[in-house]
Amino acid sequence: MDLDTYLKKSATDVNNLLNRYYGSPLTELSSAANYLLFAGGKRLRPILFMLSAEAVSSGSSPDIMPAGLALEVTHCFTLIHDDIMDKDAFRRGKPTVHTKWGEPTGILAGDVLYARAFELICHTKTPELAKIRAVQMLSLACIEICEGQQMDMSFENRDDVTRAEYLAMVAKKTGVLYGAAAGMGALCAGGSDSQISALSTYGSSIGAAFQIQDDIIDLVATSEKSGKDQASDIREGKQTLLAIKARQRGLDLSPYRRDLKADEIKELINLLDREGVIADVREEAEDLISTGVRSLHVLNDSPDKDLLIELAHYFIDRSY
Amino acid sequence: MDLDTYLKKSATDVNNLLNRYYGSPLTELSSAANYLLFAGGKRLRPILFMLSAEAVSSGSSPDIMPAGLALEVTHCFTLIHDDIMDKDAFRRGKPTVHTKWGEPTGILAGDVLYARAFELICHTKTPELAKIRAVQMLSLACIEICEGQQMDMSFENRDDVTRAEYLAMVAKKTGVLYGAAAGMGALCAGGSDSQISALSTYGSSIGAAFQIQDDIIDLVATSEKSGKDQASDIREGKQTLLAIKARQRGLDLSPYRRDLKADEIKELINLLDREGVIADVREEAEDLISTGVRSLHVLNDSPDKDLLIELAHYFIDRSY
Repeated sequence: MDLDTYLKKSATDVNNLLNRYYGSPLTELSSAANYLLFAGGKRLRPILFMLSAEAVSSGSSPDIMPAGLALEVTHCFTLIHDDIMDKDAFRRGKPTVHTKWGEPTGILAGDVLYARAFELICHTKTPELAKIRAVQMLSLACIEICEGQQMDMSFENRDDVTRAEYLAMVAKKTGVLYGAAAGMGALCAGGSDSQISALSTYGSSIGAAFQIQDDIIDLVATSEKSGKDQASDIREGKQTLLAIKARQRGLDLSPYRRDLKADEIKELINLLDREGVIADVREEAEDLISTGVRSLHVLNDSPDKDLLIELAHYFIDRSY
Repeated sequence: MDLDTYLKKSATDVNNLLNRYYGSPLTELSSAANYLLFAGGKRLRPILFMLSAEAVSSGSSPDIMPAGLALEVTHCFTLIHDDIMDKDAFRRGKPTVHTKWGEPTGILAGDVLYARAFELICHTKTPELAKIRAVQMLSLACIEICEGQQMDMSFENRDDVTRAEYLAMVAKKTGVLYGAAAGMGALCAGGSDSQISALSTYGSSIGAAFQIQDDIIDLVATSEKSGKDQASDIREGKQTLLAIKARQRGLDLSPYRRDLKADEIKELINLLDREGVIADVREEAEDLISTGVRSLHVLNDSPDKDLLIELAHYFIDRSY
């Protein structure tokens, strides 16, 4: 099966199972918790979970999938709380949960999803010890994600964030949950410690690369293509790796910290391209992908391992 | 050991263990998460956890205590998020977390504690199956607590809340976590299903009674004694059981919905006393205590069972 077909089929499986668990909300708060969860998304974390399980033990039972859903539900909870913290009014083209229900219910909706994530692990058909290790992996991941969000917020008041600080933030805020997804997949499929550890490294590396690619996409993808405002990070003066590498080269991006016309964005892209900033950032993402793929050497060759390698490259080859 | 001595000694044990786990925060966010956790409190939930364990299996190992801490940490997370939702600036005489660090860090501090709670269960020395059942009990309890807080907030815009609605809200918002505390204690000590279920009923009943007693204390305890503003619930028009029962009797409390002098509060207390409102509310709390104590009949007689019975009565006999 090629990657595209696999991603589409798997996303449908995830949606069906989410629907089976949460499709009939009984309370208003449950509906608020469901709202973003059922608003689409690529379902990459549960897909990575299942693919990792398959790569470790081909023909893994779909009964381990609840733990995979736990990762999507966790992701969704962090988005709802992040949107409150960042005062974002829209996500995926729809009003955010707190915009629709108010901040108090937004906080609670995230808190409900948080609990659901741990409850889902309990529903997983895998030995009890694996479940407990999964609970521990997920809880430690959540703490790291919070630390990553706190770092990200602290960057807003600074213009001297270093490459190392940025990479540490991205590793926590985005990498860790992908690491938990791949690691938990291996764990629930009965993988060995070295397989679990290798897949955690794989997941966290490609997850961090994913975020770096997102920063590039923010710059180069037109809003028709991405559904977001083009170059919003630079217009808002965000400390992304692009901004950090530009600063290292003595480039002053402050003139671009305002509303930009299409040709001004083109000029900005040309500048960053000419100075090697985009290539440099791109290389950082590629390095992370290489690290991730290299860690897969402990797995036997299989079509699922090939899909994992393809998925890693997809994480930075996608253009939106 | 008498109850007072037991409560004091146990609270010290809880504080020591919390200190061992979290006494050396490495990040600012960790400090924010610790702030309310180390600001005192009676530690009633972990105490109830341990006492329930002892009542089921005398001499239970202190190594099950991490799961007991999980309940205190969960309680603390709900307080931090509630304070944000309710825009409360002070708790336990200190500025609330979001007052000190801002709302975004307040949300994250609660989220960190949330994860810590589940991680603590993983550290508990009890069979893996019991740990997973504890994770499930705690996660379901958290969802109920969120539903209870949502109900409580929805009451703010109403003046027609019924007794049944109030009791359902209190059962979720306060009862459930005490139920989880006692139930998880029995579970981690190797109790039978009927013991676990009995202790859950005991905990949730006395927990709900605790909240009702809190409402009475709000009315009758002077601020010197309670550390809170006297009669604040009635002054703010809150739908407590006192207000609901007064309304049922045709009493109009709206003239008391303002700043009140000491003699006006006395007049209000006299009115509610004369009309039998206080006695009626008191009886509701006593009924819940009776239900709780009755459910203990499945336990063999023991000094620990006696302490559980004493604790139940303490929940509504305390005057602040």
